[in-house]
Amino acid sequence: MQNSIKGEPLRGSRKTYVEGKLFPIRVGMREIVLSTGNCPVTNPDTLTVYDTSGQFGDEKESVDLTNGVNPIREKWIESRNDTEKLKELSSEYGRARLADDSLSHLRFSHVNRNPRKAKDKPVTQMWYARQGIITPEMEYVAIRENQRLEEKMNGQFKPVTPEMVRDELAAGRAIIPANINHPECEPMIIGRKFLVKINANIGNSPVTSDIASEVSKSIHAIRWGADTVMDLSTGANIHETREWILRNSPVPIGSVPLYQALEKVGGKAEDLTWDIYRDTLIEQAEQGVDYFTIHAGLLREHIPHTVNRMTGIVSRGGSIMANWCSVHKKENFLYTHFDDICDILAAYDVGVSLGDGLRPGSQFDANDKAQFGELKALGELTKRAWDKHVQVMIEGPGHVPMHMIAENMEMELKHCFDAPFYTLGPLVTDIAPGYDHITSAIGGAMIAQMGASMLCYVTPKEHLGLPNRDDVKTGVVTFKIAAHAADIAKGHPGAILRDHAMSKARYEFRWRDQFHLALDPDTAYDFHDATLPDEADKQAHYCSMCGEHFCSMRANRKIRELSS
Amino acid sequence: MQNSIKGEPLRGSRKTYVEGKLFPIRVGMREIVLSTGNCPVTNPDTLTVYDTSGQFGDEKESVDLTNGVNPIREKWIESRNDTEKLKELSSEYGRARLADDSLSHLRFSHVNRNPRKAKDKPVTQMWYARQGIITPEMEYVAIRENQRLEEKMNGQFKPVTPEMVRDELAAGRAIIPANINHPECEPMIIGRKFLVKINANIGNSPVTSDIASEVSKSIHAIRWGADTVMDLSTGANIHETREWILRNSPVPIGSVPLYQALEKVGGKAEDLTWDIYRDTLIEQAEQGVDYFTIHAGLLREHIPHTVNRMTGIVSRGGSIMANWCSVHKKENFLYTHFDDICDILAAYDVGVSLGDGLRPGSQFDANDKAQFGELKALGELTKRAWDKHVQVMIEGPGHVPMHMIAENMEMELKHCFDAPFYTLGPLVTDIAPGYDHITSAIGGAMIAQMGASMLCYVTPKEHLGLPNRDDVKTGVVTFKIAAHAADIAKGHPGAILRDHAMSKARYEFRWRDQFHLALDPDTAYDFHDATLPDEADKQAHYCSMCGEHFCSMRANRKIRELSS
Repeated sequence: MQNSIKGEPLRGSRKTYVEGKLFPIRVGMREIVLSTGNCPVTNPDTLTVYDTSGQFGDEKESVDLTNGVNPIREKWIESRNDTEKLKELSSEYGRARLADDSLSHLRFSHVNRNPRKAKDKPVTQMWYARQGIITPEMEYVAIRENQRLEEKMNGQFKPVTPEMVRDELAAGRAIIPANINHPECEPMIIGRKFLVKINANIGNSPVTSDIASEVSKSIHAIRWGADTVMDLSTGANIHETREWILRNSPVPIGSVPLYQALEKVGGKAEDLTWDIYRDTLIEQAEQGVDYFTIHAGLLREHIPHTVNRMTGIVSRGGSIMANWCSVHKKENFLYTHFDDICDILAAYDVGVSLGDGLRPGSQFDANDKAQFGELKALGELTKRAWDKHVQVMIEGPGHVPMHMIAENMEMELKHCFDAPFYTLGPLVTDIAPGYDHITSAIGGAMIAQMGASMLCYVTPKEHLGLPNRDDVKTGVVTFKIAAHAADIAKGHPGAILRDHAMSKARYEFRWRDQFHLALDPDTAYDFHDATLPDEADKQAHYCSMCGEHFCSMRANRKIRELSS
Repeated sequence: MQNSIKGEPLRGSRKTYVEGKLFPIRVGMREIVLSTGNCPVTNPDTLTVYDTSGQFGDEKESVDLTNGVNPIREKWIESRNDTEKLKELSSEYGRARLADDSLSHLRFSHVNRNPRKAKDKPVTQMWYARQGIITPEMEYVAIRENQRLEEKMNGQFKPVTPEMVRDELAAGRAIIPANINHPECEPMIIGRKFLVKINANIGNSPVTSDIASEVSKSIHAIRWGADTVMDLSTGANIHETREWILRNSPVPIGSVPLYQALEKVGGKAEDLTWDIYRDTLIEQAEQGVDYFTIHAGLLREHIPHTVNRMTGIVSRGGSIMANWCSVHKKENFLYTHFDDICDILAAYDVGVSLGDGLRPGSQFDANDKAQFGELKALGELTKRAWDKHVQVMIEGPGHVPMHMIAENMEMELKHCFDAPFYTLGPLVTDIAPGYDHITSAIGGAMIAQMGASMLCYVTPKEHLGLPNRDDVKTGVVTFKIAAHAADIAKGHPGAILRDHAMSKARYEFRWRDQFHLALDPDTAYDFHDATLPDEADKQAHYCSMCGEHFCSMRANRKIRELSS
């Protein structure tokens, strides 16, 4: 693994920081540097945009991967004085891995730092919010959401305030996934009133992958805009891989603890026990995972409804738990132990992402009895988690035809009491393997416009193979498009400004500004170079599509002269 | 140029033909050959799908590009006995090009075939429909739309009938673009009650491109599913390039005659005259162009509304005509001569695609006074064209935020009396150059669901450069996704069946069937091979994404056993 990575913003950008007013915090943002004072935002020559890249996107920083990124939240957590450093890892598995010398070469150097745990009450952002407390995390996300617009828009922008963040958290309408053992995490918020977020899945599989390439994918994902990263590893050395990813991640990390629990029992679902699962939860909570997908809403009674499906149960977690229930003829132990689970989560502030184990895997199965039956159970679990002050979001489909998407959003809001909805697409057709980033971006943009708070990306490799670094980037950029389109449609004033800046640059033939304002400046440069590689063409008042005489933008100048 | 091209269906498919009942016609379709009798369509081991590839997709055929594809409509047109072969080309320009020996090396060999023209009345499909006549073209599209479902779905499918096609044509709600001088054209229908169609733009520009590569792009576009192709050439030898494209095109070809007219006056918009434009219309009509984009609805009164736009006039044709109007201080000559234009179109059955010269070029300009002012004028022109029995469709935007798309469809239906809507995307954000096939597929899928009849594709090169062959394919496949998703959402029973076949193949680990059912089998194969290249993996009951233990599809078998 390359040990040291020099910070590098996207082309044409630089890192900038905004200081807190309530707390001594500084919130990283990206400043796109424009060549003109004509930017439609009042600040003359830059546009400030949301930035997920952390130190990796700061030209003044470099990250030693063996040390990890800055633990910016450490002091905030300490100063709350409601947690304690444990003397050792609480999970048996964690201790066993630490004691195993044969793993030394794989181990993150600082892995033996002691984990932190709540002393005697919940330490979740929801708990603080309900006490009326504003945390540094809350001020951080408020500043972050505003993207400096309150400075620039001269009263036309109603900024997100820490108080509004607190109120949304208290009501359960938003979450800040921020484990006390992931101090490296730059806080972000997921909720309907905030910018739409996207998640990138990475993780090894038994068939392929290694630690270095997973860390590299994770860093690549946040460079291009992933708001959270889920480590879905199911292969070798999951524990050690996760540690490397967490210590080097400025974004929240999610996981599906069930995958690792299954590895621990040699892949046999029927051998899973609550004790093994519980130990896995604690193991991962003490590493710092910020949210867990937990398939606790898949009940025994739902399983018969999947028998006549076209594609049965396509969620990995769902199929594992359905298998367990079927073999043991018992209720899902994640459901029966859900209160115990929540007690653990509350002690570390791990959010729960209630898994949709029965999401449809084909257009045929969309919105069926199995899916909506589980969704209602997720609503019941939401209430139970909230009773323990655990932050909750709800996972959603999947494969859904366009005309059936709205019902998903409506049912989620109704049955899950406005908890944030986190969907996988949905894919609006099944017939485009190789292009499922697109089939899902269509459904994703639509459901985000309707109110979904976070979209899980899908890469071009979906249904075909494990994504590589390039696929990760394509997935992230594609879902940034879907999320951004939804932000515009929802009327977010900060979203459309970047479009205006781009359009103005287009009209004025500021090619470099266009590239730099793009979600992916590198590809924009490359595509332009493919037909017009000369330096002079970056100044030209036309391009290869139409040439000089047929350039409408060019013609406009004359029309405007003549019309004035 | 490669002279002979052997017909080659997509991987895993073969060509099939359905015979007419009213006429001696045979309609080409593509049969996807499956490895099982479990296809959800009752025909045991194949799925028949719509096919735009003509002879190029028939393994039993080969095409000599210097001869062109089969003129299947020739006899149909002849037998109507309402047209005559002219002794020579009617356009001055066409005759001059033919007389110019220096062009011999560029000329399509059969270019000196005499064009055909109506004897003494309109020869449009709309005219026939209004007389109650069913033409072979009408039966052809009815058979084509049905994709053999009436044979297979055992009464559950309400097939498209020639009578229904006739009624839609007569009402102006659908068009069959089919110039009497393009006998090679396999008829297709564009209208809200039929499958959503897509158009691929090709064409050289003064900066780049040549005849061979444009013909190659055209054939590539129809291989992957383009229903029509627009030749938007603006560079050298437009006339000769178009002839090659037409003679080798089994799909309707559209053009924007204004581009060539502008070339004829050296690129100076102010030098354009009705006579030059008129001669260009006739020149292209006699070559066989099936529909013309004509920017006749951009009126002088609209121009002032564009002055405060973010991106002014972005339509090339729109900017040319606005320029002309502004210089001459006269009304748009395409508007004042619109009845003359329609007389020409009616004599060859060229459809008119009423151009949206004032479509928005940015989110900022969407749905503004300029755009909707022009749309109302297009409605007036629709009536005038219909008075002359000319087939009409209406072009639409462009760049539109998601929440403003519906208004576009509603306004079009209202002001243009249900004439088919043909939109360019719309792109739902401006900030993703390099990915505008995706930004536009999102808007395209949505507006097609709402009722747009044809989507003009956008390639990844949009806003950056001229698309190459690969970009053409990416654009086509992406828009097939949007169109297909809309067909599903509109409830087309034939659309969703392919999704069901795919999902069933997925559930049964029939990997090859999955690849063959995909819109792009080659990419599906390649992506699967990228992680699991072994032949045995094409049989495996899992893939590299999850591996064996984590394969939910695999787990389902057990769950079903236990549940039954």
